[in-house]
Amino acid sequence: MQVVDLKQSAQRVISDLRELAAKTSTPEGAQRLCWGPVWRTAREWYRAKISELGLSIETDAAGNNWVVLAGESEKSVLIGSHLDSVPNGGWLDGCLGVLVGLEALRRYSKTKPPVTLRVVDWADEEGARFGRSLLGSSAAGGSLKPDEVRHLKDKQGTALPDALKENGVDLDTMGKANEQLKKIPARAYLELHIEQGPVLESMGKPTGVVLGTFGVERHLMRFKGQAAHSGSTPIPMRRDAFLAAASTALECRDIAKRHSKPGANVVCTVGTVKVEPCIVTAVPGVCEISLDQRALSAEVLAQMYQEAQDASRRHAAENNVTVEWELLWQIEPRPFDPDLVRLCEESVREVTGDAPRLPSGPLHDAAEMVPFMPTVMMFAYSSNGLSHCKEEDTPEEHLDKTIQSFLKLVDKTVDHVARS
Amino acid sequence: MQVVDLKQSAQRVISDLRELAAKTSTPEGAQRLCWGPVWRTAREWYRAKISELGLSIETDAAGNNWVVLAGESEKSVLIGSHLDSVPNGGWLDGCLGVLVGLEALRRYSKTKPPVTLRVVDWADEEGARFGRSLLGSSAAGGSLKPDEVRHLKDKQGTALPDALKENGVDLDTMGKANEQLKKIPARAYLELHIEQGPVLESMGKPTGVVLGTFGVERHLMRFKGQAAHSGSTPIPMRRDAFLAAASTALECRDIAKRHSKPGANVVCTVGTVKVEPCIVTAVPGVCEISLDQRALSAEVLAQMYQEAQDASRRHAAENNVTVEWELLWQIEPRPFDPDLVRLCEESVREVTGDAPRLPSGPLHDAAEMVPFMPTVMMFAYSSNGLSHCKEEDTPEEHLDKTIQSFLKLVDKTVDHVARS
Repeated sequence: MQVVDLKQSAQRVISDLRELAAKTSTPEGAQRLCWGPVWRTAREWYRAKISELGLSIETDAAGNNWVVLAGESEKSVLIGSHLDSVPNGGWLDGCLGVLVGLEALRRYSKTKPPVTLRVVDWADEEGARFGRSLLGSSAAGGSLKPDEVRHLKDKQGTALPDALKENGVDLDTMGKANEQLKKIPARAYLELHIEQGPVLESMGKPTGVVLGTFGVERHLMRFKGQAAHSGSTPIPMRRDAFLAAASTALECRDIAKRHSKPGANVVCTVGTVKVEPCIVTAVPGVCEISLDQRALSAEVLAQMYQEAQDASRRHAAENNVTVEWELLWQIEPRPFDPDLVRLCEESVREVTGDAPRLPSGPLHDAAEMVPFMPTVMMFAYSSNGLSHCKEEDTPEEHLDKTIQSFLKLVDKTVDHVARS
Repeated sequence: MQVVDLKQSAQRVISDLRELAAKTSTPEGAQRLCWGPVWRTAREWYRAKISELGLSIETDAAGNNWVVLAGESEKSVLIGSHLDSVPNGGWLDGCLGVLVGLEALRRYSKTKPPVTLRVVDWADEEGARFGRSLLGSSAAGGSLKPDEVRHLKDKQGTALPDALKENGVDLDTMGKANEQLKKIPARAYLELHIEQGPVLESMGKPTGVVLGTFGVERHLMRFKGQAAHSGSTPIPMRRDAFLAAASTALECRDIAKRHSKPGANVVCTVGTVKVEPCIVTAVPGVCEISLDQRALSAEVLAQMYQEAQDASRRHAAENNVTVEWELLWQIEPRPFDPDLVRLCEESVREVTGDAPRLPSGPLHDAAEMVPFMPTVMMFAYSSNGLSHCKEEDTPEEHLDKTIQSFLKLVDKTVDHVARS
């Protein structure tokens, strides 16, 4: 492929993104909330674009929309992302990855490609309405358990199964999407997404190679001491639950710093803090904090978790309080395929002159594909690290280069799969 | 006075306390909430006890109840405390100080004392119903500003002025209690109270000499950084408002430790903590904490306040966040009169063999009297440091010794004032 051709393609994708934004946004941002009317408008607009290529959309049992461009071989390269957005969302989160897939179809639809191309628009990646993210891709990936989401309701009180039914999806048969996926001789899954963080911006790089999605250990710690009068209780006699939690939170940051290496960044975050009785004149008797730990290496993640546990118990003992841990959620790291990571690096370097590597902190549909096929993601520069808001943006020159890099990755992957 | 006489007196006070508790408590504790029916029952019971001595009660403009036992001289020794309690309160908080005053009257009423004795039952010390403590004594002390409390309502929506009116008190003329107090040739104010803290218990001492009431600097600190995604934002790029607050809170404890000396204990307490957005997957962008600092020395208090400010600004800078301070409340320290502290020490030592000195962390009506006359307080041992709950207690042998010590202090003060 010629660079000039890629440049034209990138401009077409940006033009499509603008067209979709104009159709599905308010001044407050994108409004493509999954299972609702604006999301359906987005999908209809997308269906028309696909029709222009002489192709059609098939919806699987989980509401995911698939387009198939048959190639010389049934071996398939998948490109996926999502058209749904959070309320008041950005113009790139999700739809960038679908519309670059549309452009890949355009580029290959003129001739029969050596392998089959499949583009998937996953349903309800955001989970913004019912609180369960990766809904469609986890059904296809086989990890969705219907009974764990059956009770979910949106703010208006609509139950998830009813919202699904409105869109022709039956919660109890969504799992069939997994059987459908397994029938495909899938050889690669590619996903392009905006970074939603400040790493590429801090490096001044337009495009990043994603090494995998972080594993997550998410827990609550509950420190319990004794509430006491702030005036009458001398410091040495206190059992201050908040100060034990404060020391632990600070040490958790040190743990993350200690385990972070260039290119292998890890994080620990205390996001929620609640003290009881929470009055100005009382030593806190109880303090509950959340801890969210993430790393790309399962070994490092396990070590960070153990070190945080040790730290909490040490600070509890020093403050004469107790601490209990409660699991909120955990997922193992999902490192991407080394061959595809190498192709991704080549593509990004050829277009941008460099190929910075970074893990993905947020989860993506790609994580659900890792168990089934070689997978990789590419990230676009995120201005101010902002996402899930109308200010979300990638400057046009960076967006242009990223789209070119990704389309180059598609080409390389098609060749790679054809030869394998 | 003979020790055997004091011993009998102490037993009478304990018996009165039990009688009052039986009349005005439920299984959940004392229910003498100010301006309400149970409190009025307590005052009627007390009025009858006073009548038995051939004395009568006069209510001042602020609803404080005064008993006067005229002596050879008009120079007066005042004994005061309060019959009101918090809901579900203890059997000693407040009424111990009034009933030991009743016993002092009993002891002196048989002969004309050399100076005039006045016992005052302050109205609404607790502020448990409307949120303003020391209401009656601050009216008498002249610091009450009616417009600052006029808007206060209780949980049922009753306005403070209406509750006062029900009890024959007019908010706008409460200040006359100050003129009434000023007319008295008052030479000493004595108050006995349960410690409400763990200091005497930790020393194994029944009775303590109180050096004064702490000065208080009470502020809110608001740290402001930037909320960010917990997965996609590397540690060095964060502006974590909570960690800045956590470091500051820990340093405030160090500040208190550094300024505490034997017998000159000081405290710093972070009692409330609020983070925003307070979600598990977000770095806190805002954290607000309260800081309550207390010391008996105005100089030390000012220094602690300055050091806390410096610490907060340093930790804010280190975390790339800002911090703003907001004053909630402040009061200067109220050290007690050296001559009366000495008499108090003699009394406690003669009865208990030792005279531990400690400041009062909580405020008491005595603080309002400090500007007008020499003042001192004595504390009784507080089991487990508990107060404002039904578990509040002083073991009987300690209560007995404390009451004897206080009656001895009354005798010594009467002599001291008579001779001065």
